[in-house]
Amino acid sequence: MTQIVEPTTATSPQQRVDAWLADFEAAMAVREIDRVAQKFAIDSFWRDLVAFTWNIKTVEGRDGVADMLGARLSDTAPHSFRTREAPTEDGDVTSAFLEFETAVGRGVGHLRLKGNQAWTLLTALHELKGHEERRGPTRVLGAVHGDDPDPRSWAEKRADEDDALGRTAQPYALVVGGGQGGIALGARLRQLGVPAIVVDRHERPGDQWRNRYKSLCLHDPVWYDHLPYLPFPANWPVFSPKDKIGDWLEFYTRVMEVPYWSKTTCLSASFDDSAQTWTVDVDRDGERITLHPSHLVLATGMSGKPSVPTLPGQDVFSGDQHHSSAHPGPDRYVGKKAVVIGSNNSAHDICKALYENGVDVTMVQRSSTHIVKSDSLMEIGLGDLYSERAVAAGMTTEKADLTFASLPYRILHEFQIPVYDAIRERDKDFYAKLAAAGFDLDWGDDDSGLFMKYLRRGSGYYIDVGACDLVADGRIKLAHGQVDRLTEDSVVLADGTELPADLVVYATGYGSMNGWAADLIGQDVADKVGKVWGLGSDTTKDPGPWEGEQRNMWKPTQQPNLWFHGGNLHQSRHYSLYLALQLKARYEGMATPVYGLQEVHHLS
Amino acid sequence: MTQIVEPTTATSPQQRVDAWLADFEAAMAVREIDRVAQKFAIDSFWRDLVAFTWNIKTVEGRDGVADMLGARLSDTAPHSFRTREAPTEDGDVTSAFLEFETAVGRGVGHLRLKGNQAWTLLTALHELKGHEERRGPTRVLGAVHGDDPDPRSWAEKRADEDDALGRTAQPYALVVGGGQGGIALGARLRQLGVPAIVVDRHERPGDQWRNRYKSLCLHDPVWYDHLPYLPFPANWPVFSPKDKIGDWLEFYTRVMEVPYWSKTTCLSASFDDSAQTWTVDVDRDGERITLHPSHLVLATGMSGKPSVPTLPGQDVFSGDQHHSSAHPGPDRYVGKKAVVIGSNNSAHDICKALYENGVDVTMVQRSSTHIVKSDSLMEIGLGDLYSERAVAAGMTTEKADLTFASLPYRILHEFQIPVYDAIRERDKDFYAKLAAAGFDLDWGDDDSGLFMKYLRRGSGYYIDVGACDLVADGRIKLAHGQVDRLTEDSVVLADGTELPADLVVYATGYGSMNGWAADLIGQDVADKVGKVWGLGSDTTKDPGPWEGEQRNMWKPTQQPNLWFHGGNLHQSRHYSLYLALQLKARYEGMATPVYGLQEVHHLS
Repeated sequence: MTQIVEPTTATSPQQRVDAWLADFEAAMAVREIDRVAQKFAIDSFWRDLVAFTWNIKTVEGRDGVADMLGARLSDTAPHSFRTREAPTEDGDVTSAFLEFETAVGRGVGHLRLKGNQAWTLLTALHELKGHEERRGPTRVLGAVHGDDPDPRSWAEKRADEDDALGRTAQPYALVVGGGQGGIALGARLRQLGVPAIVVDRHERPGDQWRNRYKSLCLHDPVWYDHLPYLPFPANWPVFSPKDKIGDWLEFYTRVMEVPYWSKTTCLSASFDDSAQTWTVDVDRDGERITLHPSHLVLATGMSGKPSVPTLPGQDVFSGDQHHSSAHPGPDRYVGKKAVVIGSNNSAHDICKALYENGVDVTMVQRSSTHIVKSDSLMEIGLGDLYSERAVAAGMTTEKADLTFASLPYRILHEFQIPVYDAIRERDKDFYAKLAAAGFDLDWGDDDSGLFMKYLRRGSGYYIDVGACDLVADGRIKLAHGQVDRLTEDSVVLADGTELPADLVVYATGYGSMNGWAADLIGQDVADKVGKVWGLGSDTTKDPGPWEGEQRNMWKPTQQPNLWFHGGNLHQSRHYSLYLALQLKARYEGMATPVYGLQEVHHLS
Repeated sequence: MTQIVEPTTATSPQQRVDAWLADFEAAMAVREIDRVAQKFAIDSFWRDLVAFTWNIKTVEGRDGVADMLGARLSDTAPHSFRTREAPTEDGDVTSAFLEFETAVGRGVGHLRLKGNQAWTLLTALHELKGHEERRGPTRVLGAVHGDDPDPRSWAEKRADEDDALGRTAQPYALVVGGGQGGIALGARLRQLGVPAIVVDRHERPGDQWRNRYKSLCLHDPVWYDHLPYLPFPANWPVFSPKDKIGDWLEFYTRVMEVPYWSKTTCLSASFDDSAQTWTVDVDRDGERITLHPSHLVLATGMSGKPSVPTLPGQDVFSGDQHHSSAHPGPDRYVGKKAVVIGSNNSAHDICKALYENGVDVTMVQRSSTHIVKSDSLMEIGLGDLYSERAVAAGMTTEKADLTFASLPYRILHEFQIPVYDAIRERDKDFYAKLAAAGFDLDWGDDDSGLFMKYLRRGSGYYIDVGACDLVADGRIKLAHGQVDRLTEDSVVLADGTELPADLVVYATGYGSMNGWAADLIGQDVADKVGKVWGLGSDTTKDPGPWEGEQRNMWKPTQQPNLWFHGGNLHQSRHYSLYLALQLKARYEGMATPVYGLQEVHHLS
């Protein structure tokens, strides 16, 4: 019997990726930009985190690629593209983790091919050549071996440095706000040798969490929450209680040697255009100090300033009333009546703790809310990247972060809609029960669910950790509509419903982060940089036009030397790297020409 | 051409180990002890850490194996022996990491075969069935999802627990001494759910290090020093400065939720034989509290109490004199003359810091000293197990610890002698220079070097981080002999040499740890348990007979419910597990019949 072996033209995922990278690099090496652009699909996305653009920027399609490279290819001089591990194949998509170099740095990235064309490409700066962090084989020795010309101990050097910083030595960067964002950035700047101070108004690091309502726990699971350098140990709870995460942040600040001024309030800041330097007045535990940093980073929380509605009768209401961010917890309201205005995360958490501590509580739902059960979110939403299952399958935090970052915001909702379809099906009885109780549900304007709401508007949802059952069976009472006014002892809704109240909690959300800039620097600067957060998705609370990346976050703004940093622990971990590298490059006097500086379309 | 394939009888390492384990397990299953013993070589060692013996015990040869199994095989009921990864081969020795189970626990281990017979076997209890630590997939949730019957927050529960502990709730174990040993044990007991208190006299955790001389750094490198659960990050220095390790210990204590009483001194302790309970009086920051723990752990440092010689003239000497453990550092002695009695680690560190801060310093060498350069020790002594090179080669801390533990103490010096031969050759110029300066060198009684000195006597060496060059070229002056007396302003040696002095530092070492038991409980109990530390090697300061394991460390003693714990960070990490499991088993009321309880041959 004769067997004919057909010659095969099928290539392996590794061969496909290697071939694409080789030609991509070759075309860039000879600066043939059109040839590079032709390697991308018609519908394609190149997301760059600082490596090519000195910006956080997604360009779309061949024109976008060509435009970006036209501006940046020569300077960037990219080369040595290679895979970090074997590429994988899923249907017609081939995916690969990458490494590469530029003239000034080393990068990592991610590539998705459809056929032989790039569908998505992520390029992310990882380190600057000659300015690598000292870790692993290059970590510092600690002890001085041999004859030491500097007789000071480590503790004495640290103390001398602390004494000088902000007085005889100016910080290059001043980070305002010392929650997880400021702390993570402070740790990275410390490792990179950029003189910085993180200032925070609280008594000690972690109080940003400790001082909130007592039942608060992180709503994101531990695998999503690691800080840079020092992951949580394997016995850390899935959802950190607020005081425990507070202790961790305090510990982290100390052992990472973050230069951190507690009990410090920023009073005012102004920028000297000619000197390219800020003048910032701070009150440090009663002492007035003027600082002159080159860069100012607002890390005061992506949520911005608390929004409290102005209502008739607030002046005559005789009970307690406060914003959710100032809510002390249930203890002083046992046996009393509480009305919580709002129906998102804080409202649910506060209502649950009030109910469980014997308070008669009513939640006022003013508009529809997106609800996802925590278990479902963990298993279906995050499980492939951030879970014990992912860890067991070899997923690292770095790979998960790169995968997450590799999905272009423009099409991210397309990946998210099926996730929430699955959740809706899985938990249909739960949702039916909530609806039957009169709770007004939504899934986002395009049914794309929680994470898109977070990215677009940072609000409008509750991750259920138990309050929904209390709402569904009426233990937490539910009312609907806008608030018309307060009386001495009640809340009156637009339809005339009167809710007796000893306590009113305004769980009414937060403004845009540039509100902090208005307070600190001036309304002119706040307007100059415009709205912070959101994508321009033209959905509720995220007006168009499409901007491609989150507004003003971790990247240059229209105000020179002013930066915004914040978000959840994941974002604080991952994006602090790119902000730190941008600051480090400027500190070292490297050229950092920004491609595609964002325009301002909205003031707040 | 005809090719004849010879049938091969050669087996792979995996096959050899699998075959040995299968027959070993089968023979144990049918309780054929002689058959088990025959599987061991004539010269062989079985080291057990709690899994079979409820003790830390090495038995030697077939008779030793048979005797131990005769006492312990039925109860232990071992089974499911298997390799954890592919065995390796080196000459005629096949090595394998193991897992196995017993009636009550799961174990890990290590096997070395010579041919088809066991040369060394290590069996180590890893966890107790039904009492596994919650970590990874079984970690606690943190937040309470659903309707919470306990309205207290995490912080409130912790505060209530702290308030009750030692007052309305008695600790099962009281750990005296909160350095790295007490803290690591406290963390493990916490994870295992054993009620415990760690008491320590200092202001806060870490002061055990902070309060020492200012130039002190760890002499062991970072890879050797990880604490349980929470390894140092990749940017941690190779040799931690004392204040930095102090900060780490303080925050480790906090984030691991170790129940820790600072500013607490133990005043007295006595054991009630009938109640099997201790009565311990403590002073907690001025308040007298009586505790009733079932178990008392002395974790006051393997070095025991400072030894200060009694010398004529100490009463007339007008300068400062103190033991090295109380030395404040050089600052107050600038421009003065110091005499440091002793020539081991503390003496060298203190002399170096004094010299570098402008003090005229003389070291008095009373007997020969073993010197090893830190670099050489790291590269040749520890490099295969604890180094960046080891990490890069896939070595984990757990595997390194098991490998380290698998080498029987009886023959450990045979492994060590070639290491120090190599170091002597590598650094011959360095040693020649020191000898030429009159420094009296040794390599241990049998040339087995530093680690054997540490295990046998815990003293007699200096890991050079630079002081030797200062000694060699005379910047640190050297004198020899015993001290005869002090005068008002000098130290007079036996040969009449008079050394002018404003400061005398007694770097004269420490006594046995049972000295702490004498102070706290009484001389009768100290004598009952006898000398702590050392192996019975019949070398200097470690008199015979051979005892096989370190005396009284981490295992039952002749005093019921009294335990000793301590050592360097490596030992604090690794052996705290076995001590914690022994305490946990007793706390849960499991039978813990001890095989081969050590006898007492020396009182101190």
